[in-house]
Order: sequence, then C-alpha cells, then structure tokens
Amino acid sequence: MIRRLCIIGVGLIGGSLARALRQAGYVQEIVGSSRRVEHLQEAVELGVIDRFDIDAARAVQGADMIVVCVPLGAMEQTFRSIAPTLAPDAVVTDAGSAKARVVAAARAALGARLSCFVPGHPIAGTEKSGVAASFAELYRNRKVILTPLAETDPAATARVQTMWETVGAQVQCMGVEHHDEVLAATSHLPHVLAFQMVDTLARMSDEDEIFRYAAGGFRDFTRIASSDPVMWRDICLANDRAVLLMLERYQQDLSRLAEAIRAGDGVELERVFRNAKAARDRHSER
Amino acid sequence: MIRRLCIIGVGLIGGSLARALRQAGYVQEIVGSSRRVEHLQEAVELGVIDRFDIDAARAVQGADMIVVCVPLGAMEQTFRSIAPTLAPDAVVTDAGSAKARVVAAARAALGARLSCFVPGHPIAGTEKSGVAASFAELYRNRKVILTPLAETDPAATARVQTMWETVGAQVQCMGVEHHDEVLAATSHLPHVLAFQMVDTLARMSDEDEIFRYAAGGFRDFTRIASSDPVMWRDICLANDRAVLLMLERYQQDLSRLAEAIRAGDGVELERVFRNAKAARDRHSER
Repeated sequence: MIRRLCIIGVGLIGGSLARALRQAGYVQEIVGSSRRVEHLQEAVELGVIDRFDIDAARAVQGADMIVVCVPLGAMEQTFRSIAPTLAPDAVVTDAGSAKARVVAAARAALGARLSCFVPGHPIAGTEKSGVAASFAELYRNRKVILTPLAETDPAATARVQTMWETVGAQVQCMGVEHHDEVLAATSHLPHVLAFQMVDTLARMSDEDEIFRYAAGGFRDFTRIASSDPVMWRDICLANDRAVLLMLERYQQDLSRLAEAIRAGDGVELERVFRNAKAARDRHSER
Repeated sequence: MIRRLCIIGVGLIGGSLARALRQAGYVQEIVGSSRRVEHLQEAVELGVIDRFDIDAARAVQGADMIVVCVPLGAMEQTFRSIAPTLAPDAVVTDAGSAKARVVAAARAALGARLSCFVPGHPIAGTEKSGVAASFAELYRNRKVILTPLAETDPAATARVQTMWETVGAQVQCMGVEHHDEVLAATSHLPHVLAFQMVDTLARMSDEDEIFRYAAGGFRDFTRIASSDPVMWRDICLANDRAVLLMLERYQQDLSRLAEAIRAGDGVELERVFRNAKAARDRHSER
C-alpha cells in the first residue's frame, strides 16, 4: 500500500499509473508535479491526482513512492531538485525508455539517496500523449523492466515491483546495458524508421496525393510516427550508441535487399520476406 | 449487372470482390479458377463462387466480366491462356499492385482483345491471404485506381468502374507510371522496410528475447511484414525502378538522421520528428 504517491510529469504514462493504482485501492493520496500548471489542473479535474505542487521539491515531501515520468532530458534536473526533500522512507523510480542515461543522471544528482532509486521502464504506451489520453488499463499484461543498481536497496526494488504488479504488469529485471540494446531493437529502431519514412514522403512534391492513396497498412506502419517528437528526440540522444548500432545493421541489410531488387534476384527477396513473415507470425501468436 | 463473373485467383482480393458483388445482388453467376483445386473447393464451400474450372481458358467462357487476381509473375501466362476463349462482350480487369508490368503483359498476350482490358488496382487488403480471409466489406470506402490504356474501350472502363462502385469503392483514373510511383511511396516502400526490419531482428542472436519485449507499436509497425512473401517478391520485381528510387531517397534521409544522432543534434532530430508527426496527424484526420 502506498501512503502518498508523487507523480512527476503527469502525462499518459504517469497519469495511467495513478489511475490504475487508485482503481486498485493501493494508494491513499496522489500528488502531481509538472512544468505546466494547466496540465496539473487538468489532471485534478480528471480525478487523476488529488493535488499538485509545481515545485517538485515540495511535491515529493512526505511521499513514500515517487515516480518520475519526465522526458529523458529533464531527468537529472528533476533528481537534483528532489534529492534534498525526499522522505526517509521514500522510494524513487522512473519510466524512462533508455536506462544508461537515467542511471548516470541519478548517480550525478541523487547523492546519498541513490540506494532508494530503482530504474524502471514500463513497455507500454500509445502514440498519444498528455494526461487526457491516460487510462487505468494501460499496464495490464504489459511488461515492466527494472534495472536495479548494485547500490539499490533490494527492499526498494521489491516495493516498485509490487506497485507494477498491482496494476497488472509483469515485472522483469535485467542489466542497464542489456535493456538499452533490446529496446533499441524493438522500439527505438522502428520509431526512427517510421518517423523518417513519413518525413521523406511529406517532403515529396506530390505529398497530398501520396497520402491520399495510403491504405490501412500504411496507417498501422506509421502510427508510431505520431508519437511525441521531444520524447523521441531525447530517446535517440540518450540511447545513441545502441540506436546507431541497430541503424547501421539495418542500413546494411536494406542495401543488400535493394541490391537484390536491382539484380532481379527473386530467390533472395523471397528468402528475406519469408524469414520476416515466419518470425512475425511466430512471435505475434504468443 | 454482371451475367457471369469469372475470378481468376480466388484469394483475399478476388474472394472479397465476389462476396461483395453477390451481396449487392449485382451478379448472376460466379465462376472461379485457380492453380489449386483445394482452394477452389474451399471457395465453393464458403459460398464465394458457384462453380470452378481449374483451366482458366474454360473458366472464362461465356463470362462478361473477368477479374484477374493472380500474383504479378503469373499475369502474362494467364492473359495468354484466356485470350482465345474470351466472350465477344467480355471485359477483363486485374488487381495487380504494379501496373506497368501488368500492362506490358497484357500488350504481349491479349493481342486483338487488348481493347477490353482495363488495368486496375484496389487499394485494399489485409496482411492475411487466401479465400478464408475474404469478406464482403473489404472495399467499402476504399480507393480503386484504374489506369486505362489509349487502346482501352471507354465502355469497358465504365463497366469496371461501376462494378467497383457497386461494392462501395471510390474509383479514380491515372496514368500507369504515376500509379507505380505513388504506390512505391505509400505501399511498396513501407512493406519493404517492415519486412527488412523483422528479418534483421530475427537474425540477431537474442531474437527470442527481443521479440518478447516488443510492444503494441512494434506489432502495428510490423503487421505488414506478415503479408504474402511471394506476392511481395513479385511486386518488388515488377515495380523495381520506382521502388529502388524510393529506397535510395529513404536511405539518404536515414543516413542524415543517423548523422544527427551521432552529432547529438537534437534540433535536427526534433525537426524531422515534428515534420513527420504533423504530416501523419494531418493526413490521418481525413
């Protein structure tokens, strides 16, 4: 049971967690903090949080669970603000999509309170953002990855794990580096590819006509290109090494495929397409 | 009203058209032809076709509307088979995704009957294939592009247009080359990118783990990679010039994006992502 939950950054991710914990009866009071008062007022009106304080340092006072859901670029400043005012029994976790950068920020900014920090990443979301898009079911049957540090108090990790399980998520622990590599492959690469494809098409002279003939497959393929640009800018910058590695691998494979098209090599094309379809069908059955 | 409809290649596309025309009461008899008897028997059992003939030349006899839904690589052989037995009032159309190759096949194989041929392309489909996946609503509010030739009898074009409008589609005419360029951008490029991405990930050593952490965005992005490999092999080979042009343009843009990540250029990343999101949101509202 959480006595006082503090959500810093009350958008889709933080708002959905707040809604789900309240629905589960697992939290007594929810305090929000964000950069913009309008968003916090909206969150109160929607019943997502009970009250707010625009000042994160004050917002965390007396909270036993703090979930930091700010863009990756704002993590370090947030940690620095809250470190001095954290309650003695406070546990801090986050929802950042690239863990190495968050861990570096925490090491730099949390000081003696590092042991209460549990790096986390819920593998959930939609292309929408903002508290109005939040909903209590977002984490049901989703995975949440925790990447506890050597310094992390195991009791803190256990409390974060229980919180996520309470809202229906499956929690798994792994190393920071490994998390960033896996996510570069399954999430960061497809987002970059989709953003770039829509940008490429949007800069063509017959843009309007091109989009007019886009069918359902195109809409699904590009849905993630409607995601928040600032969030994805920060993810690319924060996980640059792993993202660049995946991009390089992908570009090489794509060049080989283009070569097969140029050469009229139907055998090679069919081999790649069959392998992709088999993998996709195999894994989407689970 | 169609007296006798002949569908050659009774899968998702041809089967859905047959279902929709029957539902609309716009057809008296539906004859199917395919390479495999099992598929035709299944189509009869599902009520999609009334009867079948494995021999396309016999299947088209007495039909006033013939819709050729075979893979692009099989178009020319099909046209060659049916040309001698077409009824005097027959109209022939097709559903191929790349028109230049189909038109070349028709010119080579239809001979004196070229004037009854109306090249067509319904912009509809799902990642599934086969007659069991067909459904009458597939074409409702979808676009169908016709690319009539200089030789095409305008009355034939009108009959094909009316057929598609009867099943709820919006018909537009354009030139063959232009069709192939637009489709390379909106359909062929995303399919190639999605197939290649799943193939790239499937060949990584930690494939199983990678797919385990794939979320909803990944599933949507890769849905089209579950499409029929042979069909897409044929599309890439048939529309090679336009597909290669789009791939080249995309690869250049992607390299520039990778360069921005490498340089830590957040301004450029945000510009690309914002442009993509704006275009995607703007066009998906329609």
